[in-house]
Amino acid sequence: MAITLYELAGAEEARRFSPHCWKARMALAHKGLDAERVAWRFTEKETIAFSAQGRVPVLRDGDRGVADSWQIACYLEATYPDRPSLFRGDEGVSRFVNNWADSVLLPALARLIVTDVFDHLHEKDKAYFRETREARFGMKLEAVTADREQSVAVFRQALQPLRATLADQPFLGGDQPVYADYCVFGLFMWARCSSAFPILEADDPVTAWRGRLLDAFDGLARKAPGYDC
Amino acid sequence: MAITLYELAGAEEARRFSPHCWKARMALAHKGLDAERVAWRFTEKETIAFSAQGRVPVLRDGDRGVADSWQIACYLEATYPDRPSLFRGDEGVSRFVNNWADSVLLPALARLIVTDVFDHLHEKDKAYFRETREARFGMKLEAVTADREQSVAVFRQALQPLRATLADQPFLGGDQPVYADYCVFGLFMWARCSSAFPILEADDPVTAWRGRLLDAFDGLARKAPGYDC
Repeated sequence: MAITLYELAGAEEARRFSPHCWKARMALAHKGLDAERVAWRFTEKETIAFSAQGRVPVLRDGDRGVADSWQIACYLEATYPDRPSLFRGDEGVSRFVNNWADSVLLPALARLIVTDVFDHLHEKDKAYFRETREARFGMKLEAVTADREQSVAVFRQALQPLRATLADQPFLGGDQPVYADYCVFGLFMWARCSSAFPILEADDPVTAWRGRLLDAFDGLARKAPGYDC
Repeated sequence: MAITLYELAGAEEARRFSPHCWKARMALAHKGLDAERVAWRFTEKETIAFSAQGRVPVLRDGDRGVADSWQIACYLEATYPDRPSLFRGDEGVSRFVNNWADSVLLPALARLIVTDVFDHLHEKDKAYFRETREARFGMKLEAVTADREQSVAVFRQALQPLRATLADQPFLGGDQPVYADYCVFGLFMWARCSSAFPILEADDPVTAWRGRLLDAFDGLARKAPGYDC
């Protein structure tokens, strides 16, 4: 039975910029699973009503619907155990990395790109996005990204545990990437698909790691519409 | 052949307060390995000269000497593969957690306890500690801990990825602790053995996790000389 992945899209249908959808997409690729990728916008709540919530990614696998990127990764690992493992037996520690990505990196990165994300949205999503994100940040979107020179220093400093790890091994998973890599890399794809702002320095070990993941699975991520910066 | 662990001690020989030595001690306990624990002070470089460096923990296992808590964990995992696994196949992701602990938590925690650590040192270590740590911080030790009310808020905020993970599972390892737990817990033992300053709130999920690890291995960590706060 075919797998369907509902992914957030911008004004251009091919611009799939959600960090969490990228986590799911890389997890599917790691498992070697094909999926029909359906473009979805923030305001199309009825399309994913079957998942009993209102956000993507949503995976439909036969008659099963799974929402939330972490739950999707766990579902794929449990349902397709004979394919390459996403967690290699250590799901718990990967959950920590996912929480680090979402609670530390995501807000720091938002301060660099959220207005660029807004500019790429479908017109019908713009009011929804502005209202919900301005409530979250407690300020106008334009104020969030007002001091990117300062914010990029904070973001690069926050990468230190990743940078230190990549000094000793090519991926968080060691010699090969695992879900812990993808859940961090998804945030870098959020930036790449939305913003030309240079978030990394060229000689940062994180840049080389990002390049290895852009090249993974026949350049799946590198071929996606985005900014090469 | 007997295993020996060289551990940093304070003025009291039983006060073993090094976070990195606690990582090694918990790793040994996880493997079910006994070790002779030797008290060591910062200025006793010649005692561990066999390890070709000047810091503890140092493990001696028969004729093998291993320095550095991460290397000790890897050595124990490789040398005693039939005993409970420290990494459960995912050494790479555990290394990230260790780097997060050392690069994010350790400096944040130092701002709460470094003067208390100083107060517990053996007299012969005090000048060495003050000189090296003041060079590292770029200020007097007393200035580092001058605003603990502000610093404790920063420390607690930095725990967010750990806290979010513990909302879903009792340990970073999931149902059971792994090395990723111990390498974070070691920092909490640094505080517990040195300082009465309350670094956590009672209802923090991190406090409950710390309690579970204090109780692990028949209360090994809870029985060590320290402050119950």
